[in-house]
Amino acid sequence: MSDIISDFNAHRQRMNERILDTDNIVIKRFFNLDTNVYQDGALDKRTKEMMGLVASMVLRCDDCIRYHVQECHRSGIGREEFEEIFGVALVVGGSIIIPHLRRAVEFLDALSS
Amino acid sequence: MSDIISDFNAHRQRMNERILDTDNIVIKRFFNLDTNVYQDGALDKRTKEMMGLVASMVLRCDDCIRYHVQECHRSGIGREEFEEIFGVALVVGGSIIIPHLRRAVEFLDALSS
Amino acid sequence: MSDIISDFNAHRQRMNERILDTDNIVIKRFFNLDTNVYQDGALDKRTKEMMGLVASMVLRCDDCIRYHVQECHRSGIGREEFEEIFGVALVVGGSIIIPHLRRAVEFLDALSS
Amino acid sequence: MSDIISDFNAHRQRMNERILDTDNIVIKRFFNLDTNVYQDGALDKRTKEMMGLVASMVLRCDDCIRYHVQECHRSGIGREEFEEIFGVALVVGGSIIIPHLRRAVEFLDALSS
Amino acid sequence: MSDIISDFNAHRQRMNERILDTDNIVIKRFFNLDTNVYQDGALDKRTKEMMGLVASMVLRCDDCIRYHVQECHRSGIGREEFEEIFGVALVVGGSIIIPHLRRAVEFLDALSS
Amino acid sequence: MSDIISDFNAHRQRMNERILDTDNIVIKRFFNLDTNVYQDGALDKRTKEMMGLVASMVLRCDDCIRYHVQECHRSGIGREEFEEIFGVALVVGGSIIIPHLRRAVEFLDALSS
Repeated sequence: MSDIISDFNAHRQRMNERILDTDNIVIKRFFNLDTNVYQDGALDKRTKEMMGLVASMVLRCDDCIRYHVQECHRSGIGREEFEEIFGVALVVGGSIIIPHLRRAVEFLDALSS
Repeated sequence: MSDIISDFNAHRQRMNERILDTDNIVIKRFFNLDTNVYQDGALDKRTKEMMGLVASMVLRCDDCIRYHVQECHRSGIGREEFEEIFGVALVVGGSIIIPHLRRAVEFLDALSS
Repeated sequence: MSDIISDFNAHRQRMNERILDTDNIVIKRFFNLDTNVYQDGALDKRTKEMMGLVASMVLRCDDCIRYHVQECHRSGIGREEFEEIFGVALVVGGSIIIPHLRRAVEFLDALSS
Repeated sequence: MSDIISDFNAHRQRMNERILDTDNIVIKRFFNLDTNVYQDGALDKRTKEMMGLVASMVLRCDDCIRYHVQECHRSGIGREEFEEIFGVALVVGGSIIIPHLRRAVEFLDALSS
Repeated sequence: MSDIISDFNAHRQRMNERILDTDNIVIKRFFNLDTNVYQDGALDKRTKEMMGLVASMVLRCDDCIRYHVQECHRSGIGREEFEEIFGVALVVGGSIIIPHLRRAVEFLDALSS
Repeated sequence: MSDIISDFNAHRQRMNERILDTDNIVIKRFFNLDTNVYQDGALDKRTKEMMGLVASMVLRCDDCIRYHVQECHRSGIGREEFEEIFGVALVVGGSIIIPHLRRAVEFLDALSS
């Protein structure tokens, strides 16, 4: 597995565990909601992950983008679909998103190799 | 048709026509892209409109939200699906989105009545 | 009570009730968290409301600003303290915040009269 | 003079005076900086006002946009130049800017009539 | 002292000195305001640093977060208080803040060890 | 040539080529617009690059800032002019921009040496 993938996932898991090692009820419940919201419901997980990816792109958060690119990839979303998601994000969010798109494609290429 | 719907659509159409009454090629092409990006492709229009709605909510643009709520409604998206879209936007974007959610639901109620 | 205060509170209450008239668990829980997070804890409600106000100002959400100005006012925060909160928001967030500051002061003046 | 122009300027002036009726040194100095930064220097006021307009558009602040559209108009900036400024803002900031562009053009039309 | 702390502070100090080695009055005065605004006044420095931290978190600026985490830590703010500040930022700003929270906690752990 | 310059340009060029190796018409056309919008017109390229830099700073995108700093430098913009651009960005966007300013000045120093 590529370094940019394993490094990202290792840091994410380690620090999430560190954050959740707390008695703070707001933080625990928020992380819980963040898991629940992408589960199958009236809309399926696959659609929600695509929405999570678009939201992360227009808000320009690289780690959030990496996470949802990975989840979309696991849900079987293919290259053409990814490119249409990127297109929506680019038109809605503008050229300011391009550097994040470069890193998203780099991460997706690593996942696909 | 409710006033908040017809007022929104009338102002939107009038000013878009005013903006496009120009020789500026960048503006014309950008508006063109903004139409094309939501058309059926590897992903269908319905899915793209949902992505457009989530993006508009996390970026907190009331008029963009109204436009995509209307397009989603036209695509046959039902109440439970809307609420799951709102849920994703709320978790990703936080409580700062709540005032926009209030106006989104008000507009959706007007469309549904 | 001034119109800008009662109009704001009436719309907020009416639409919040409309939003919470749902079976969607994510939305219900998020609204719950949004109430809990400002309660007394290691930090008191007064301090948390001031933090909520600064966050709302730098994110430039008028309705959120109005809500927290009102809660801060109820917590007994005085004019000089408000001005120091506004100062922090202004320096962190820049001149783009000034129109929101104008509306915040207008609302605070209505609350104080 | 059109209502949308006089209403904007009257509210802006009245609330700015209200805000500056204070002993808070941070607020006073910030407003001072906000005036100074657009004065002639190595770059002229005209160029700086155009930069202020682009910044206001990509940050999506209607009142800031109105203010800088007015200042640009006073500096003799013509329609074609405005459209190129709008083009830069649109490409950098994306379609989320379009509702603000509609209101900017409406305000500019009022100034020009 | 941990590397992530000393690297951050060294780069920050070196580049701030480089920026302030100028005759530009706007830049000098802005940096001055940025120091003054957190001093004791009607509100104490400790409270203002907490507000600076929340503002930095919802605006998602890692370096600003590191700076205010450090200043809060110096002001004697304890773990439970930090977690309540993080809770407010998380609820106001949403899950998009989580990657910044991971880096904030990593930095705070380094400061505490 | 300094490493921070060549690394930035190499990654940018490599990933842009990777992104444009697609049949997706929206992405291709958007990148095209992003090139066209800064060409000479009613306003010259130099002025547009300054506007692109200010927009990138207030939106806080380091890679976009580096790109436009480089283009402005190529257009012959001098130190005093850069500082006035930075001043506008700082006042409009606030202290949250300072970490990006530190990296912008570091990049400009590398270009100038």
